[in-house]
Amino acid sequence: MEKVAINSEEDFLYAQVAGRIETQIRQKLLNAGDKLPSVRALSTEQGISISTAYKAYVELENMGMIEARPKSGYYVKFLPARFTKAPEVKPPLEKIAQVSVVEMIAMIYQNMSEDSVLRLSRAAPPLGLIPLAKLNRSMMEAMRKSPSGNSNYENLQGNISLRKQVAKNAFNWGGNITENDVVTTQGCMEALIFCLRAITKPGDTVAIESPTYFGIFNVMLSLDLKVLEIPVDPETGIDIEYLAQAMDKVAIKACLFVPNFSNPVGCRMPDERKRQLVELLASRKIPLIEDDIYGEIYFGKSRPRTCKSFDNEGWVMLCSSVSKSLAPGYRVGWCIPGRFKEQVINIKLMHTISSATPTQAAIAHFFETGRYDLHMRNLRRALHTQCLRYTQAIATHFPEGTKISRPQGGYALWIELNKSINAFELYQAAIAQNISIAPGQIFSTDARFTNFIRISFGIPFDDMVEESFKVLGGLVKSLEEKDRLSVMLYSSPSITPLIKNPLF
Amino acid sequence: MEKVAINSEEDFLYAQVAGRIETQIRQKLLNAGDKLPSVRALSTEQGISISTAYKAYVELENMGMIEARPKSGYYVKFLPARFTKAPEVKPPLEKIAQVSVVEMIAMIYQNMSEDSVLRLSRAAPPLGLIPLAKLNRSMMEAMRKSPSGNSNYENLQGNISLRKQVAKNAFNWGGNITENDVVTTQGCMEALIFCLRAITKPGDTVAIESPTYFGIFNVMLSLDLKVLEIPVDPETGIDIEYLAQAMDKVAIKACLFVPNFSNPVGCRMPDERKRQLVELLASRKIPLIEDDIYGEIYFGKSRPRTCKSFDNEGWVMLCSSVSKSLAPGYRVGWCIPGRFKEQVINIKLMHTISSATPTQAAIAHFFETGRYDLHMRNLRRALHTQCLRYTQAIATHFPEGTKISRPQGGYALWIELNKSINAFELYQAAIAQNISIAPGQIFSTDARFTNFIRISFGIPFDDMVEESFKVLGGLVKSLEEKDRLSVMLYSSPSITPLIKNPLF
Repeated sequence: MEKVAINSEEDFLYAQVAGRIETQIRQKLLNAGDKLPSVRALSTEQGISISTAYKAYVELENMGMIEARPKSGYYVKFLPARFTKAPEVKPPLEKIAQVSVVEMIAMIYQNMSEDSVLRLSRAAPPLGLIPLAKLNRSMMEAMRKSPSGNSNYENLQGNISLRKQVAKNAFNWGGNITENDVVTTQGCMEALIFCLRAITKPGDTVAIESPTYFGIFNVMLSLDLKVLEIPVDPETGIDIEYLAQAMDKVAIKACLFVPNFSNPVGCRMPDERKRQLVELLASRKIPLIEDDIYGEIYFGKSRPRTCKSFDNEGWVMLCSSVSKSLAPGYRVGWCIPGRFKEQVINIKLMHTISSATPTQAAIAHFFETGRYDLHMRNLRRALHTQCLRYTQAIATHFPEGTKISRPQGGYALWIELNKSINAFELYQAAIAQNISIAPGQIFSTDARFTNFIRISFGIPFDDMVEESFKVLGGLVKSLEEKDRLSVMLYSSPSITPLIKNPLF
Repeated sequence: MEKVAINSEEDFLYAQVAGRIETQIRQKLLNAGDKLPSVRALSTEQGISISTAYKAYVELENMGMIEARPKSGYYVKFLPARFTKAPEVKPPLEKIAQVSVVEMIAMIYQNMSEDSVLRLSRAAPPLGLIPLAKLNRSMMEAMRKSPSGNSNYENLQGNISLRKQVAKNAFNWGGNITENDVVTTQGCMEALIFCLRAITKPGDTVAIESPTYFGIFNVMLSLDLKVLEIPVDPETGIDIEYLAQAMDKVAIKACLFVPNFSNPVGCRMPDERKRQLVELLASRKIPLIEDDIYGEIYFGKSRPRTCKSFDNEGWVMLCSSVSKSLAPGYRVGWCIPGRFKEQVINIKLMHTISSATPTQAAIAHFFETGRYDLHMRNLRRALHTQCLRYTQAIATHFPEGTKISRPQGGYALWIELNKSINAFELYQAAIAQNISIAPGQIFSTDARFTNFIRISFGIPFDDMVEESFKVLGGLVKSLEEKDRLSVMLYSSPSITPLIKNPLF
């Protein structure tokens, strides 16, 4: 497959057009066997060049969505079985888990910083997609602009320019806030921790999604909190009914959810469901910590709303950062803690006095100058293309029966393998080949996702990525094979439980 | 005052212009009675609209900085009125007793960020003593040097260049360490918290100095730790014999001391006593968290050694930062956690993934280029001079019998007033005159320092500082006077203890 130059406008265009046609096929507006417009007609219709239209069709052909029939044109293909099913969602075992130390997570984090490893487990923008020159210029201009060279303790609540930009940007997700509502932090993780510390005590129970990002387990562990896992449906998000029932049985002190492009499932919770969730929690006076770190990485037409946008009573504490959209190394994040603002500020004071000034000022400048909006348009396009290409490569190289999620944003593909596969075993085999993936085991406190893996599509698709999927697919096949051969020799593979679950 | 609409460009502008004029007045570039340019002239000069120029003047008028004289224009007002006024109403003592130490601390932090207040309570280098141009250049060069523009997640243990510089610099305090021994943090406070979290659990008891920096109480409070206060002698430092006896009676999980220029006493613990302390704790396998944030601010010939330099078994966890020596706003700190390194790194991962890259890289560059050493020589000289001048002013203006510490480094003078004086009452009277001091009450959990105050000499000595001591001295005298008159009316004030002391 051709190598994609990520910064070419044309490359975005053909991927966009291909993406639109793909959506129509998935939504059954176009059906198997339907004839597609000619290349020339597509070019006229979409206002693109002939060559771009041609490339769009080639892309769709490579993905297995359409086929060229000689001297006739392009037709929608019969979709392979694997595309028609989303990964199965398993209900959590309805137990509360006291999370303890997680060796797998540490192992995976360790491998993440090794340069020789192809990190299909890392969900962050790759360098090639960050406008470094402009970002550096923002840093320099912010330094020059400040009479104190940003060397002084920052305002406790956070840099005022940054808070203003966060408030302004909130308009896009339906927010109506001012800089007084915002508290800045050192990345989203610190925001989550400050919010949790503001409203919980060690031993309290917090409801989280299942599966969920493993960093959240680390946070819970570090704060001695118990977790209750609530299932997530790929289409409708957090199972509100399940949550309501759970709240009758268990004293839940807070919820921590990722309603937009949850990691790893990638689901976008519908707005109406968000409203229902907010109303349910407000009626029970339970705070919702809303991790919206992926909210800006949407592939659809518009920025999804947040739960915060439906929050009239201040029970929602929104947390986010620029780590997934711009520069993780800057450690610039924030929260909008609603009625718990004073408590969060107090925790921040105790923990850190204030956040770093230079990085906050630089990011504020990057927003102010409009550089952020431009950058995000490019980033979204590029990631959408990468998402499609990764999906195609997995569909090509993995065995039949593999199920792949269809994220509408974010960085992650959630992949269900044959039940016989142990994802951690696959992880170990892959890392020996210098390929890092995230095994399903680390996304839950119990062994419900042992045959799942998460693939992040942050790295631009190229021959090396394609090759790595060939290798991964081979490993999956050989593990399936091995399982068939050895089924008589030992009982089904078991993994030392990652996290002790005392209540099971 | 008018409400500021956040999204209007014009609103930023007038506030900016007003801010610039305010700075000129504060810096005495404009003096009381000076005529300001007309609204029209200001508009032309600054390239702003007439209405923006007008708004800027109204803002300054509301702030009490300038006055409008009919048919003449705007003039700088006489500012120092507040310094010559006698105190008005003194709050009743009953009211004071209801303020907890935590509330006092919050109150004092709040006042610290107010520009109009002369902050004799703030222990940090003033802008005038920071080589801003060089620091900015280090930031810019560090940005240029990095292929990723410092935008990526930093190494979990910390920026390697910074760790190398910390290790190299450790030579000056008798350390023999490498970059592998260092973990970077967001300032010294975060380093202290990571160390405490690595070795304690909620409910554990930690030995601290008495008196001690109030931020340390906040840390203990936020981690649900109990404190045991160990007396400090101005000459010999922490009372080792007292500590040894206390350890026989109470299960002490860790010690947190400031052996070099402890805040507020300013004592430099003799090297031999440091060795004894380290040996005592090692023999009992109790970790010592050594806060060395003031170690670089010495007035003598050489850098004092640290407890860490006597540590052969890894029980000492040294914490420091550049917040007192260079740039608090950068939030760059570190710890050298000895045998607890892995635990500290783990806590750091859980809390924050990594520290910000740009600020770490800039500080590393500032060290590498030798700028730090040059700057520190200047800073030490300047602070030593300021220390002497402040002492002189206090001796001149305060009543006879006032006792003043003789620090050999750091930022603080610890002042004992007549026993009848309630330092918090003095604080309140002083803040009403826009002078901020730190009352003795906030340096201990029990009411042992009610007649002490801490004065920080970070601000360069000038007429305004001199004047403020005249005012303070007057307040002290009038409080003494008041006490003589009212001694029969109420009993001595008592303060709600902040943290329960298991021993006392």
